[in-house]
Amino acid sequence: MKLEIYDTTLREGEQSASVSFTREDKLKIIKALDALGVSYIEAGMINSPEDIAFFEKASLLPLENSRLVAFGATLRPGETAKSSRSLSLLASTPTDTVCVFGKSWEYQVETVLRTTKDENLRMIADTVDHLVSEGKRVFFDAEHFFDGYSDDPTYAMKVLETAKNAGAERLILCDTNGGMLPDIIGMASAAVTARFGQCIGIHCHNDLGMAEACSVSAVLSGVLQVQGTVSGIGERCGNANLNTLIPILQLKLGFDCIGERLSFLTETARYINETANRPFDEKEPFVGGYAFTHKAGMHIDGVMKSPRTFEHISPEAVGNLRNIVISSLSGRSAMADKLATILPDLDRNSDKVQSCLEAVRAKENAGYTYEDAEASLMLVIKEALGMRKNYFDLLNFKVITDEDTRVAGQNLDNMRSSAMIKIAVDSREELAAAEGNGPVNAMDKALRKVLSAFYPIIDNMKLTDFKVRVSSGGATASVVRVVIESTDSKSVWRTVGVSTDIINASWQALRDSVEYMLDRNE
Amino acid sequence: MKLEIYDTTLREGEQSASVSFTREDKLKIIKALDALGVSYIEAGMINSPEDIAFFEKASLLPLENSRLVAFGATLRPGETAKSSRSLSLLASTPTDTVCVFGKSWEYQVETVLRTTKDENLRMIADTVDHLVSEGKRVFFDAEHFFDGYSDDPTYAMKVLETAKNAGAERLILCDTNGGMLPDIIGMASAAVTARFGQCIGIHCHNDLGMAEACSVSAVLSGVLQVQGTVSGIGERCGNANLNTLIPILQLKLGFDCIGERLSFLTETARYINETANRPFDEKEPFVGGYAFTHKAGMHIDGVMKSPRTFEHISPEAVGNLRNIVISSLSGRSAMADKLATILPDLDRNSDKVQSCLEAVRAKENAGYTYEDAEASLMLVIKEALGMRKNYFDLLNFKVITDEDTRVAGQNLDNMRSSAMIKIAVDSREELAAAEGNGPVNAMDKALRKVLSAFYPIIDNMKLTDFKVRVSSGGATASVVRVVIESTDSKSVWRTVGVSTDIINASWQALRDSVEYMLDRNE
Repeated sequence: MKLEIYDTTLREGEQSASVSFTREDKLKIIKALDALGVSYIEAGMINSPEDIAFFEKASLLPLENSRLVAFGATLRPGETAKSSRSLSLLASTPTDTVCVFGKSWEYQVETVLRTTKDENLRMIADTVDHLVSEGKRVFFDAEHFFDGYSDDPTYAMKVLETAKNAGAERLILCDTNGGMLPDIIGMASAAVTARFGQCIGIHCHNDLGMAEACSVSAVLSGVLQVQGTVSGIGERCGNANLNTLIPILQLKLGFDCIGERLSFLTETARYINETANRPFDEKEPFVGGYAFTHKAGMHIDGVMKSPRTFEHISPEAVGNLRNIVISSLSGRSAMADKLATILPDLDRNSDKVQSCLEAVRAKENAGYTYEDAEASLMLVIKEALGMRKNYFDLLNFKVITDEDTRVAGQNLDNMRSSAMIKIAVDSREELAAAEGNGPVNAMDKALRKVLSAFYPIIDNMKLTDFKVRVSSGGATASVVRVVIESTDSKSVWRTVGVSTDIINASWQALRDSVEYMLDRNE
Repeated sequence: MKLEIYDTTLREGEQSASVSFTREDKLKIIKALDALGVSYIEAGMINSPEDIAFFEKASLLPLENSRLVAFGATLRPGETAKSSRSLSLLASTPTDTVCVFGKSWEYQVETVLRTTKDENLRMIADTVDHLVSEGKRVFFDAEHFFDGYSDDPTYAMKVLETAKNAGAERLILCDTNGGMLPDIIGMASAAVTARFGQCIGIHCHNDLGMAEACSVSAVLSGVLQVQGTVSGIGERCGNANLNTLIPILQLKLGFDCIGERLSFLTETARYINETANRPFDEKEPFVGGYAFTHKAGMHIDGVMKSPRTFEHISPEAVGNLRNIVISSLSGRSAMADKLATILPDLDRNSDKVQSCLEAVRAKENAGYTYEDAEASLMLVIKEALGMRKNYFDLLNFKVITDEDTRVAGQNLDNMRSSAMIKIAVDSREELAAAEGNGPVNAMDKALRKVLSAFYPIIDNMKLTDFKVRVSSGGATASVVRVVIESTDSKSVWRTVGVSTDIINASWQALRDSVEYMLDRNE
């Protein structure tokens, strides 16, 4: 059976306390969601003429799989379709589908709307009726449906019936406060689908950590449409996570959501999080970097014998990869596998395997970890094997950040960072200096400048990401872990540096990045 | 009914790709878990005499509520209790309770152990029997139980029966690969509890994002013990999250887990994440900083009318707090509430409310957000109100990181950062310089040194945390957001700085922190 996937990242996602999207971001996200193949993309709430202008732009995108949906409110108490400016704005949005939310919980009607139950029904009926008469397909979001159903099931059903009779094509059951358990969601959804048939949607929040379990429970009770967001971005604890729900529905339960496009899932999830400027949660089910990462020796041993022993699905099904963490816990056989990539003829029982493991363990004890810094790991291994080449000696290094002004102010707008680096290759010395946006940028520029005199190929690489993690404990004297991502447009590699000094940690990661690139190009 | 909560943060948590604990960390975590009131604390796997030494130390802690559990493997194929060094190590651990894991899935027995189903039963029976004869209470972890039960329920049950007959007090059903849906967990658990009664535990992983839903499903099928970790830390996508499970079981379902100690939950979760040196997920249900945070204007309006409209439980029940985000989305009424804390007599319709909202919006447009930097927000508001006092003028500022050495090496071990700051208060000028572990530490020291000449009270404050977030986009030229946490031992406040330059961003946050403190002490 085909289910409808309805993405609300662009509206509910933006209600998350740490997320805001630019219009450019939104257009990019719409394109990515269309390529993934979701049925509906809720592209935002209609509050102002600027929102209409955005939809005009968005409606020019050549979408192949998805329809855009505009979101809005039902009429307010006393308001009519003729008098409501916001309803006519919504009706004028250049989309064929709109979604409007209304109250289905008596307590909300009385406490928040401060009106009667009958007037609430009138507002819903008039809203839906007007939009239908303007040629829209209308979805009705029954806010707080499950709270309402628990308190007074007759009224909650009456609300749905009112919207349906006025012409709503979909009735969406919302657990707005996210406090319901899957069993209750399942039972109420079953009652609704028994009454209204195949036109019901489910919209869950994650305040119990169960948004996905609740959504699945509703689908198993006959619901047709599943609403959620990429990575579960949303207000408070987030919304139902589509990255999790889609593979469960397809791979575990046999529903069709996005068909074979499922293999784009990991890539799309990462792209949208990046566009939203949001740190990706590597622990995310299915799409996270750790989802198929094995660290314990026994698990690694099992996965090497047969992936099914410690993997519930194949990572390729969702476009993800298996990852064996090389650490002191991972053991000889994983390290031997790693060494085979650089020394294919190495005996798996060689002492070299043990010395590499010990070198990694010594680094770990100093605070290094390599799960997201494979290039640095290769350099540590090569050093332990006596295979690491010295590409340059550092002779002098200085980074200065300063400002000199008599103008008092809250910001140092004239602050500049500069770096000076002197190196020697064999006996030839070179010196270079550069200014940058911040000390690490200055250091990066100066290093590339001075190196290009010896290794012109360095111009082919550039930094694409820079992450800092500060270990808590001693505030600014804490340990800083820097991970740098670099690319030469053919491939991407990551390196790590660790120090109490952010400049030192950044320098280590930069140096590793450059050395890894030079080494690979030999 | 009283449920047993079994915490495995110290073993399974450490299998997470980004976590490792020192022994000191582990002792701190044991104390915190005992204060929270969990029944069992699995303090680690027994692999070596060093592990025994750790348990000897841990067993000296004066625990009030919890028992320590040591974890170990069952015998290997062909091994006997007499010949097994690892079993006698486990038996010698100074704890009265041990947990051993064994296979309950035929596929694992054949693929990983490479032995017969009967030999597997023999190994389990001999292991449990030996430990019981050594005076231990034994819990048996049935690894991959649900996969085993799906493939061959008779054998899976036979494994449980073997452990039980040999004297195991608890039979723990593990969804080791995390791939099972709650319904299947519930049905299988019901079959097991029907057969063995009140001695069953549940141990779920989060590969479907449903570890908590699965655990609840098992409890509703009669399971007595619930295993999990703080914040769900664990291999791959993590384990069942006890921070989520405990309040659901107590508040939503009426079981007793930790009684009134539930109000310590948020504090304990934060403390253990901090001890584990792990960034806290503010979106976590119940305990996260965003769990009761409202950003959308309509939600804020609703919560102000009645918290129940948009909160499924009271935040106080789990020791958390409600939080209204002041942003351009939050609207006039939230800002008016905020202003009332500094200007109690202000008319809620005053133009000042609007100018403060606009000042915040301007800052947001420049990349600032204030949800975790309340102190900086207050300064922005005071500036908009013309109430911000200027405590000093900055005249000169310089930060240098350098090293000068002819010794070639991978690390710059002699690298040092120093800062020089010159300020004026009224017409009196002062200059100070300081060295530090990294540029921010040097800057912090120099600023405090130069300020203490004018404001001796500055000696009462110190920095307690420093967080850096780099926005993706342009690598080292990206925007850096720095949040600094400070304390004067009576209270804690947080400030933010944003710039392309990490030094500049850190400076802004430092300056705000100092000004906020001076302002409050007037």
